[in-house]
Amino acid sequence: MQDSHAWSGRFSEPVSELVKKYTASVDFDKRLAEFDIEGSLAHATMLNKAGVLSDDDVAAIRQGMAEILDDIRAGRLEWSVDLEDVHMNVERRLTDKIGDAGKRLHTGRSRNDQVATDIRLWLRAQIDAIVVLIAELQQSLLDLAEANADTVMPGFTHLQVAQPVTFGHHMLAYVEMLSRDAERMTDCRKRVNRLPLGAAALAGTTFPIDRHYTAQLLGFDDVCHNSLDAVSDRDFAIEFTAAASLVMVHLSRLSEELILWMSPRVGFIDIADRFCTGSSIMPQKKNPDVPELVRGKSGRVVGHLIALVTLMKAQPLAYNKDNQEDKEPLFDTADTLIDTLRIYADMMRGITVKKEAMRAAVLQGFATATDLADYLVKKGLPFRDSHEVVALAVRFAEGQGVDLADLSLDKLREFSPLIEADVFTVLTPEGSLAQRDHVGGTAPNQVRAQIARHRARLAG
Amino acid sequence: MQDSHAWSGRFSEPVSELVKKYTASVDFDKRLAEFDIEGSLAHATMLNKAGVLSDDDVAAIRQGMAEILDDIRAGRLEWSVDLEDVHMNVERRLTDKIGDAGKRLHTGRSRNDQVATDIRLWLRAQIDAIVVLIAELQQSLLDLAEANADTVMPGFTHLQVAQPVTFGHHMLAYVEMLSRDAERMTDCRKRVNRLPLGAAALAGTTFPIDRHYTAQLLGFDDVCHNSLDAVSDRDFAIEFTAAASLVMVHLSRLSEELILWMSPRVGFIDIADRFCTGSSIMPQKKNPDVPELVRGKSGRVVGHLIALVTLMKAQPLAYNKDNQEDKEPLFDTADTLIDTLRIYADMMRGITVKKEAMRAAVLQGFATATDLADYLVKKGLPFRDSHEVVALAVRFAEGQGVDLADLSLDKLREFSPLIEADVFTVLTPEGSLAQRDHVGGTAPNQVRAQIARHRARLAG
Amino acid sequence: MQDSHAWSGRFSEPVSELVKKYTASVDFDKRLAEFDIEGSLAHATMLNKAGVLSDDDVAAIRQGMAEILDDIRAGRLEWSVDLEDVHMNVERRLTDKIGDAGKRLHTGRSRNDQVATDIRLWLRAQIDAIVVLIAELQQSLLDLAEANADTVMPGFTHLQVAQPVTFGHHMLAYVEMLSRDAERMTDCRKRVNRLPLGAAALAGTTFPIDRHYTAQLLGFDDVCHNSLDAVSDRDFAIEFTAAASLVMVHLSRLSEELILWMSPRVGFIDIADRFCTGSSIMPQKKNPDVPELVRGKSGRVVGHLIALVTLMKAQPLAYNKDNQEDKEPLFDTADTLIDTLRIYADMMRGITVKKEAMRAAVLQGFATATDLADYLVKKGLPFRDSHEVVALAVRFAEGQGVDLADLSLDKLREFSPLIEADVFTVLTPEGSLAQRDHVGGTAPNQVRAQIARHRARLAG
Amino acid sequence: MQDSHAWSGRFSEPVSELVKKYTASVDFDKRLAEFDIEGSLAHATMLNKAGVLSDDDVAAIRQGMAEILDDIRAGRLEWSVDLEDVHMNVERRLTDKIGDAGKRLHTGRSRNDQVATDIRLWLRAQIDAIVVLIAELQQSLLDLAEANADTVMPGFTHLQVAQPVTFGHHMLAYVEMLSRDAERMTDCRKRVNRLPLGAAALAGTTFPIDRHYTAQLLGFDDVCHNSLDAVSDRDFAIEFTAAASLVMVHLSRLSEELILWMSPRVGFIDIADRFCTGSSIMPQKKNPDVPELVRGKSGRVVGHLIALVTLMKAQPLAYNKDNQEDKEPLFDTADTLIDTLRIYADMMRGITVKKEAMRAAVLQGFATATDLADYLVKKGLPFRDSHEVVALAVRFAEGQGVDLADLSLDKLREFSPLIEADVFTVLTPEGSLAQRDHVGGTAPNQVRAQIARHRARLAG
Repeated sequence: MQDSHAWSGRFSEPVSELVKKYTASVDFDKRLAEFDIEGSLAHATMLNKAGVLSDDDVAAIRQGMAEILDDIRAGRLEWSVDLEDVHMNVERRLTDKIGDAGKRLHTGRSRNDQVATDIRLWLRAQIDAIVVLIAELQQSLLDLAEANADTVMPGFTHLQVAQPVTFGHHMLAYVEMLSRDAERMTDCRKRVNRLPLGAAALAGTTFPIDRHYTAQLLGFDDVCHNSLDAVSDRDFAIEFTAAASLVMVHLSRLSEELILWMSPRVGFIDIADRFCTGSSIMPQKKNPDVPELVRGKSGRVVGHLIALVTLMKAQPLAYNKDNQEDKEPLFDTADTLIDTLRIYADMMRGITVKKEAMRAAVLQGFATATDLADYLVKKGLPFRDSHEVVALAVRFAEGQGVDLADLSLDKLREFSPLIEADVFTVLTPEGSLAQRDHVGGTAPNQVRAQIARHRARLAG
Repeated sequence: MQDSHAWSGRFSEPVSELVKKYTASVDFDKRLAEFDIEGSLAHATMLNKAGVLSDDDVAAIRQGMAEILDDIRAGRLEWSVDLEDVHMNVERRLTDKIGDAGKRLHTGRSRNDQVATDIRLWLRAQIDAIVVLIAELQQSLLDLAEANADTVMPGFTHLQVAQPVTFGHHMLAYVEMLSRDAERMTDCRKRVNRLPLGAAALAGTTFPIDRHYTAQLLGFDDVCHNSLDAVSDRDFAIEFTAAASLVMVHLSRLSEELILWMSPRVGFIDIADRFCTGSSIMPQKKNPDVPELVRGKSGRVVGHLIALVTLMKAQPLAYNKDNQEDKEPLFDTADTLIDTLRIYADMMRGITVKKEAMRAAVLQGFATATDLADYLVKKGLPFRDSHEVVALAVRFAEGQGVDLADLSLDKLREFSPLIEADVFTVLTPEGSLAQRDHVGGTAPNQVRAQIARHRARLAG
Repeated sequence: MQDSHAWSGRFSEPVSELVKKYTASVDFDKRLAEFDIEGSLAHATMLNKAGVLSDDDVAAIRQGMAEILDDIRAGRLEWSVDLEDVHMNVERRLTDKIGDAGKRLHTGRSRNDQVATDIRLWLRAQIDAIVVLIAELQQSLLDLAEANADTVMPGFTHLQVAQPVTFGHHMLAYVEMLSRDAERMTDCRKRVNRLPLGAAALAGTTFPIDRHYTAQLLGFDDVCHNSLDAVSDRDFAIEFTAAASLVMVHLSRLSEELILWMSPRVGFIDIADRFCTGSSIMPQKKNPDVPELVRGKSGRVVGHLIALVTLMKAQPLAYNKDNQEDKEPLFDTADTLIDTLRIYADMMRGITVKKEAMRAAVLQGFATATDLADYLVKKGLPFRDSHEVVALAVRFAEGQGVDLADLSLDKLREFSPLIEADVFTVLTPEGSLAQRDHVGGTAPNQVRAQIARHRARLAG
Repeated sequence: MQDSHAWSGRFSEPVSELVKKYTASVDFDKRLAEFDIEGSLAHATMLNKAGVLSDDDVAAIRQGMAEILDDIRAGRLEWSVDLEDVHMNVERRLTDKIGDAGKRLHTGRSRNDQVATDIRLWLRAQIDAIVVLIAELQQSLLDLAEANADTVMPGFTHLQVAQPVTFGHHMLAYVEMLSRDAERMTDCRKRVNRLPLGAAALAGTTFPIDRHYTAQLLGFDDVCHNSLDAVSDRDFAIEFTAAASLVMVHLSRLSEELILWMSPRVGFIDIADRFCTGSSIMPQKKNPDVPELVRGKSGRVVGHLIALVTLMKAQPLAYNKDNQEDKEPLFDTADTLIDTLRIYADMMRGITVKKEAMRAAVLQGFATATDLADYLVKKGLPFRDSHEVVALAVRFAEGQGVDLADLSLDKLREFSPLIEADVFTVLTPEGSLAQRDHVGGTAPNQVRAQIARHRARLAG
């Protein structure tokens, strides 16, 4: 079936079957079909305006493409590996339907700029979906934060109890991360949303095309201003994958915490059964499979990032076949991210918070030692000296197996005569929280203020 | 020297020497010293405004810090590994100089938010330098492009001759890539330029701090709105390293081309001797060491990106010691990028273009075959059919060892009767170039228009 | 269909559909089915020997599994996502066929050790196939090397002409790389070929199993000596992926060279049409798609390596669900490598060597300058001095636009009086080659000796 | 100082200062000096045997090199960036000392094969050191395992309590991983330990060298059999870095567990104060800095792996300057690994095991549910059915807030009449452990058997 290829006239022997399978992309790029058609229709409209395609041709193309789109959506279109890729499959089908008008559609473009356009249209749609899903996950986290704006839990550094925080405050840390993730997606979109079509193979075309018009038809912000660059660079895809990696890294961190908090020794939360699975051998098990998989899938996305960077490293201009390898990592990155965000937003609504376990943990770890140090500073001791006083008090209390709040005033005064009866108000978790009352601090009213800020932002 | 540590009171044995060396960061974080002092001074000013530090204390701190800065710049300050990091080294020196006021400086902050602030101040300065250096490299490329706006060279796809382009057009492809790189740096800067100070260890502080005032003093756009997030995330560093990787990947591509173009079989350019080195054994060699090293150093920066991503993967909140490992990859990324941009801008000014070799290469590769196909389309043949006609003509000419332009009109008409005498104007490189006259196309006047656009942008 | 799960009794609500899809692995792990059955049969045989399963049960299991295997091979088995993975799909089918005996098969094992066993069996088979395919590619390269044992070509360093080599010698460089690649695969196989089965979920089992017997039945060299390690580590998979990355990196280098050599300005080789494709727009194009794709696919495999490393980083013992993410990268790595090796061996047989172009390139680049320097050393000049003499001669000749061999004896003697008439024999490419006559040198008889050594090794 | 370069005669302008700094490697490759001298001495000895160097020359070289070695060890040698690298620095110093004999040393070699030899000699020494350090860490773990061969702790899967294991068994999992790591290092050493010297620049040399003799002098197992391959490939460095990454990944996992176990809610271990640090702000903190840094440093080493892979991707033969970038990642990988192994072996000796906390955790998590299921299987119930019975019993017990062992026999019999009074012996942690008595199982006598096996292996 040699003549199925778009380029066969020059060749003296057909492509080997092995090569055909190795080089064909239709198995994975067929998912671009709707965007390919959208781009082709805009191209045809522009060619018509430029006087290159007749009104009849354009009408035939529109009709043919509408039918093909129906076929695709109905699963009726049979994709042929002999036709290499999505572009040739669609074009061949079109030509079968409408004849020469279909052959004329490829005027003034090449598969090089065509595929670059398709990927950008597709990726733009993914980014838009991702930004919405990030907002949904943030809403889910904000609900949880609001319900726990004053739920005391130990704040950890080095996984050691550091100071009391609220669970709401902890959830807001992830809301912040996700806000930056959404910003990055939006920034990336600016660079995705530029039109490569018109670059043709690499140098532009001899037809009187109007690229700004095509851009306008397709909703692009601008055109790519250099044809060689337009067909050969995939930095926008790498930037997207890097931004996606950061979302996944953030969720790997939250997943790590959920897994840890659900471990029976910690016991801070429970995850609803519908997000967990059991064991084929251990009948008692309830495993947090979803966060574990998310943690694992962070590797998957980071791997795709490296695949794309390695792909582009040291590639000479302009288009090389290497670039065909951009699609699978990119597709899987978007799929993984979208599935993960969706399931995460749902799962976070299924979290049960065990407040008493959290509070008990705070009382175990000298979490208010810093508050005692600050107390002494306010009484006039330089910070470094008060730190040393409290360190010795902690060492004593630990030896006794008690918390600082359990020491008598007399005992405390042995460490510093500046300590007075009012010290005990700062040694409770609630006293500690309430005092951290500045922007970004963990005091419950600050937590509520941040929730309100995010709610307003997301509503805006 | 146990008591040198900021936290020793609680410990029953000193840190082992091996551990001290393994965990100390002063050997590499001392480069943050100026930013550490800048941050401390702003913190002191804010504490004074908040009524926490007296005027006398602040005056003493300013005087002490000024002396320390002098000592650092003069190389007189001796950094101590026993004091772990840059922060404790500076603070200890300050306390030695001014006594208790120095001890009071650490009020309301922690090393966790302090180091996060230092890194952001440092990175902001690097980004600003990088954006300037990218512009300088672009100027260098624009000069080269301008001088070669109509220098014919073969445009390659798959390293096969595809269509004629101009060398100026080719250079502009890299100007475009670098424009996006600069955009990414600028976008990243927004997320870098937010103040973590005030997050203290992880939960905020009990002192009445004014974080917006500190932010204003340090030129930050905003504060970090969650204390846990502020001290624990390094996504801004990963984003920067990803953006830097893309610059390096772009330069690896240009390097690949320079190396190739300077290879004697290609012979399109020469690089000035001062950017090349020779061989200790082969006396005739002149090697393009700089582009080769740049190509190699792309790996270095990509490695740092992966180091940072791996570092953050699955880290629970808030600060963990793992994060100390963020600095060396980040520092080396900025250093490598800055050195590379600087040397590249200079090197591109030392490029000699061998126009005759480029033109000869165009004539070797049927570069105007597409022009013939377009010619036939304009005579009414559908594109796919004209493509097939030309493919057969190329196959014939190749068999004869001649270019399409060398075939007689009669011979050409054997392939299609639509061909007429005017065909020969489209078969020359210059004719081919001139016809690609639309935004982003390789026609010399389009190249000049893009140069003007970039010049205006860079001047703006 | 809640009760389809192997672990459902403990749960109060069914798994959500989204979670089911997100966590199920059967879509990709069904390819392990034959190995799963092989492992189950060995397990059953061992349990029978240990007195845990009756003869009748084992006979029923064998019969049932034979039928299932037939169904799978005939594509008749319908895989159910509700049954999560390949193991439960097979077991459920077995139980449907043979009842309680099927339920008893899972005695003394868990899916954790079962999947670890399946992967190792599968990977062992892939490694064995890869080692054979590497040898086939080496044979293909040896044939090419043999036909070109004395074909002169320029040896490049820094893509500058360095010294003459033979094309056969150049091909042998890749034979060497591939030999090390095969060694690495073989070394990796040792660590793959150890039996995890018997580790059960993580701690071993209470049944009197005989792991060495199972190992023997399955052809494993040894058992895994610690149950926690057996179910949780995937270092063997990472090692394999690292070894595969090196093969791909090696082939990316050869691909880079093939692409370069086929570029018209270089013109050293031609690749048979059946391994190339054309352009949809440029009728003259013949593109080396296969080497370009291979170069690009090196990124794909390196990405998988990073995915797996990231996956394992900081995972606590023992089995976590993260590990389910090991399969797709591993499967795709093996598939990519196997397809690539197969197509490469075939493609290298379709290479046409253009000897005259290679020889012409040698004469262009002062390739025998080192020979002149060595000549002077043999006449008594220290190497560093002779190097300087030749550098000046090259500079002069380059200025004249001629090769060293084109300078007159008198002119050459101006640079050193040690030069005599016999110098011209060392200034020809053939003279240069013939003198590099030691193990590993490029002299044609050394090339032939290496070919013989490799042929013997591969035959052995 | 143009004439300082080994290759300057051909050049018309000196290298720019910026380029000199950018391309020089002496700042980092000077650490190869001792190996460079070792290689040079072997080369000189071989040249003497081959009749190329006189006895007097070799004697002078030996004397000169001995003095230079003294200077280096005493820190007296001043390294010059003008002399580019370690090789030229040493050679220039030698020539200053002994004149023409020093210039003759470079006969028959090039810096390309010289640096490849130096790196291999250096890396071989690092591998040998690493293998010893791995064994020392294993001894440390074996001591800990022996002291805790029957210390009950919960075995986790998914961080949920799964089944009882012993702490000794858990430690042995890491001994196993490290054994494979040592195997990989040893396998890698085979490919490192081959002599590139004699490949000269890329094609071999015209001097009558005896490479096998040089190999023998330097303790290499074999020579590299192809000169192009010898100077250009760095796969051995990538293989080493991949093996090092696996060691670091394994230690990142142990680090994760140590951090977790030391977290107060878990409280399974304590790490000696000398391996921990405190907080500058929170006086009560004792942070497991060393394991945290190790976990972070895994990223560093993985980053180096990617740097090297990216470096080699698509590099044409033979030597390119890119390869100079191999050294820093390789050096830092070995340094990081060696420091980490050393500190880890020491730290593991400072672990205090809190047995009562571990045992309490086992009793919290239905850890013996599988034992009950196995019990029922032995009474005749098919495994899948017994699993379901126990799942229901666990669900009931959990609802009551008690362990399975706390249910009465009557209550248990409600779930299955097969349950009899002997059930309670299998429901204790010790009963559970004792029954897992097969190779690789967690029964204490199996743990002791594995310890003995490893001790014998390490002693062997």
